[in-house]
Amino acid sequence: MNGSMLDWPLTLDRILVHAERWHPDQAVVGAAPDGTMARRTYAECADRARRLSAALVAHGIEPGDRVATLGWNTLPHFEAWYAIMGIGAVCHTLNLRMDAAQLAWIARDAGDRLLLVDPALLPVAEAMRALCPAIEGIIVLGAGTDALIAAHDPARWGGFGEDQPAGLCYTSGTTGDPKGVLYTHRSNFLHTLAIIQPDLFGIGAADSVLPIVPMFHANAWGIAFAAPAVGAKLVLPGARLDGASVHRLIAGEGVTMSAAVPTVWQGLLDHLDRVGGGLAPLRRVVIGGSACPPSMQRRLTDHYGIEVRHAWGMTELSPLGTVAAPSAASAALSPEEGGRLLQSQGRPPLGVDLKVVSDDPDAGPDTPGRLFARGYATVGRYFGRDTPATDAEGWFETGDVAVIDRHGFLHITDRDKDVVKSGGEWISSQGLEAIAAEHPAVAHCAVIAADCDRWGERPLLVVQLREGEDCSDASLLEPFDGTVPRWWVPDGIVRVDAMPLGATGKIDKRALRDAYRDHLRAS
Amino acid sequence: MNGSMLDWPLTLDRILVHAERWHPDQAVVGAAPDGTMARRTYAECADRARRLSAALVAHGIEPGDRVATLGWNTLPHFEAWYAIMGIGAVCHTLNLRMDAAQLAWIARDAGDRLLLVDPALLPVAEAMRALCPAIEGIIVLGAGTDALIAAHDPARWGGFGEDQPAGLCYTSGTTGDPKGVLYTHRSNFLHTLAIIQPDLFGIGAADSVLPIVPMFHANAWGIAFAAPAVGAKLVLPGARLDGASVHRLIAGEGVTMSAAVPTVWQGLLDHLDRVGGGLAPLRRVVIGGSACPPSMQRRLTDHYGIEVRHAWGMTELSPLGTVAAPSAASAALSPEEGGRLLQSQGRPPLGVDLKVVSDDPDAGPDTPGRLFARGYATVGRYFGRDTPATDAEGWFETGDVAVIDRHGFLHITDRDKDVVKSGGEWISSQGLEAIAAEHPAVAHCAVIAADCDRWGERPLLVVQLREGEDCSDASLLEPFDGTVPRWWVPDGIVRVDAMPLGATGKIDKRALRDAYRDHLRAS
Ligand SMILES: Nc1ncnc2c1ncn2[C@@H]1O[C@H](COP(=O)(O)O)[C@@H](O)[C@H]1O
Repeated sequence: MNGSMLDWPLTLDRILVHAERWHPDQAVVGAAPDGTMARRTYAECADRARRLSAALVAHGIEPGDRVATLGWNTLPHFEAWYAIMGIGAVCHTLNLRMDAAQLAWIARDAGDRLLLVDPALLPVAEAMRALCPAIEGIIVLGAGTDALIAAHDPARWGGFGEDQPAGLCYTSGTTGDPKGVLYTHRSNFLHTLAIIQPDLFGIGAADSVLPIVPMFHANAWGIAFAAPAVGAKLVLPGARLDGASVHRLIAGEGVTMSAAVPTVWQGLLDHLDRVGGGLAPLRRVVIGGSACPPSMQRRLTDHYGIEVRHAWGMTELSPLGTVAAPSAASAALSPEEGGRLLQSQGRPPLGVDLKVVSDDPDAGPDTPGRLFARGYATVGRYFGRDTPATDAEGWFETGDVAVIDRHGFLHITDRDKDVVKSGGEWISSQGLEAIAAEHPAVAHCAVIAADCDRWGERPLLVVQLREGEDCSDASLLEPFDGTVPRWWVPDGIVRVDAMPLGATGKIDKRALRDAYRDHLRAS
Repeated sequence: MNGSMLDWPLTLDRILVHAERWHPDQAVVGAAPDGTMARRTYAECADRARRLSAALVAHGIEPGDRVATLGWNTLPHFEAWYAIMGIGAVCHTLNLRMDAAQLAWIARDAGDRLLLVDPALLPVAEAMRALCPAIEGIIVLGAGTDALIAAHDPARWGGFGEDQPAGLCYTSGTTGDPKGVLYTHRSNFLHTLAIIQPDLFGIGAADSVLPIVPMFHANAWGIAFAAPAVGAKLVLPGARLDGASVHRLIAGEGVTMSAAVPTVWQGLLDHLDRVGGGLAPLRRVVIGGSACPPSMQRRLTDHYGIEVRHAWGMTELSPLGTVAAPSAASAALSPEEGGRLLQSQGRPPLGVDLKVVSDDPDAGPDTPGRLFARGYATVGRYFGRDTPATDAEGWFETGDVAVIDRHGFLHITDRDKDVVKSGGEWISSQGLEAIAAEHPAVAHCAVIAADCDRWGERPLLVVQLREGEDCSDASLLEPFDGTVPRWWVPDGIVRVDAMPLGATGKIDKRALRDAYRDHLRAS
């Protein structure tokens, strides 16, 4: 039909150009390795990133080529992202919690040409490169990139279509070898517009935003795009994510909004328990990556006046799936019921479709089932694979087990592989964890499936007690009394000094299962 | 490259499907002609809209066909929108402030096949149809659509690409005949994601949103898409937009956010002056369409505690261009200076590029110049035209004159285009001039926009009489009688001995505006 709207491709370079043009003096600050804060503006970052782009082009990097980064959330890492993506190359964010062999496997699979690395991670990078001869060079984020920036004039960005790949992120979230999700400019751009919304992260130009979630964990959940997209101040925390450091950053940089996995918030709350003090000017935190215990949510809300947004997502969804935010539905309920909705994983934004499929065709709507997702930022095919990651209708099986309640709120009851199947019935490990976490002596806890001759599997509670605390098994099991069916109560308790953490900082339940799968049998 | 994200086209049917799935019980209410409120939920609206779609299909409406609506913001109008767009047809929103002849010209230009009309507007619709035989039928919004909905099973939506046209809106904002802007599913979808943002309209599922701006005025600025997109309650005000009616709606429907042109807010403030009372629970209003007087902004903010978001846009931008919201930049200034930023037209969101071009190459950055825009929801080519509406780089000349200050805030200082904007609606100065020139005593004439406290602008007729001629104001105004809507008739007449002429020998209307802008105020 004659008549049309302008062709304006959704490419990510436009995000930093927007910040440079309309929020030129807004601050982007990052914790340097020595603990001091480096400070720049969006205008400076954009100029520097364009110069770094020119250095990559001079090296021979072409659109579609993979350039890997291995680093914490820092200013040089932020600039490197836009430098890589701005010329149509693919920014492959490596997970710094992996060892050299794992990293090399992934870099080979990705076909990375260059590696940009934090100075502190140079040893692992060198070890990795020895296993991965195709990598043409290592550039140190900071000293190395500064030198290149000084030596080059700005490159021109853009000029490619919105379906150009922009980022690559590997996940070992499901079984088998790690698999790469190849984000496009379009999918990341749309994901950015989604998370900015008031009911999701709710970010504006008056905010100071602290992404504690790593840039290698599904693009820091999109925050390194969303902050410049709205002109918010961006605070990059570097390598120190302990409670004291996070507390200092919040106060020192006027942080109003932040996002991280539950373990980080637990560290911060423990720190505040020890030293006292408040969290002003922090107003809102997004908690996701694993289930946020209701007790943590209550402490942040009731004691510190923080609005907690519980979020569910996964690398394959870019990553955002759902967020729990107040709504007409939650406001119409009793405070207790409404609160339960806000403790759920929440609802999807426009652009994410979800469905729950039960194995039992006669199951009612409240029966947990396998969760499928689909949307404008959902993986279609893993990097380098020939077959789709979805079914013919585009549905991607998440591997999570969930219920969608009649208000449209999602309740993840388990990972498919975490579920405890006792006597043919599912017991929600996450439900039990939420209860165990209520106990005042418990710092971290996990419920895993232990093998059992009689029931197939039975729940086993693994706890890490708070420093200096001690308590009996009976006391630890007390919170379950009357709150769950009797057959859900864990059959045993294991105490550990420190929980094993996975690559993205979540409790590594797979490691726990490997270690304690036979625990109930042996005893 | 191997590996990709899912193909998920940005089509508008998904917006109402999203609301139906995730916010099924959220209310959509609309003032009925008798003043009572009709109440439905998103789930009901979606079902009804799909049934109305089936009726359109049964009539033979195909993707791309234009179906016109002529109506206030009502529930049946809202349902008709999605019914039309959901099957890939084009919803052509006619401006009910035009007369039958103007409407017929536009409907012929658009090639409308059907007309859906408010019962109260049936007379003008019939008169219009007499001039426009290609219209195959008239359906009354309410009685007529209800009957069709009852008689049909739901149709299937979607199945077309995101570049499918979805809406058509004519503007007489620039010179010459009215021109149609043909919105696509993609452009409206992206515009929706933009306006939801905290720094723009800032809408969430806990909001109750009242779009007073008509659905025929650039899609109610996008609100009829944004409210279901986030699951907000939607309150449709119907035909009564006077202060008392708006006041009643705000209190009665718990309205937290609203949007309208300045004239509407003036009416509400005048009403409150008379009867007293407050505006709770209203928290935020978007004011645009013409400049919001700082005094109005101050009264709403200081006296009623309302956050005012001053916005600039135009039909060709879908319509949003800029919004003034608090930011780090405004907070860093003195209250007075920061306040001035919030009284400006504000900053563009990601997805809108702006530039100011001065005719004087030596002009400093603070010199007003011609404003150009470009973005993912900017017109590329007017409906039915062969030539682009933009230059080769995609820049669309807005016809506004502006300064962009060093904080990135836009200040509209003037208008290049030759039109009068009265109460948010255009009056064609050229149309009036053509009529005035008919008078035998008139040698030259010009109609300019004069400032007016109540309507923003009103038409002022400037005449140079033939030598030796003299005649009364009443005689000069006589030709307008019955040929244009009553509210188009000039509010005053200025007689000059000689028209100022510009460089090309045309009447210099800018010089006239400079001289007589205050004429109606002074008198
Ligand atoms: N906030 C505003 N301040 C000044 N002029 C405005 C504002 N909003 C809209 N306009 C004028 O209205 C025109 C768009 O009209 P329309 O296409 O009918 O929405 C713009 O080009 C401006 O001339």
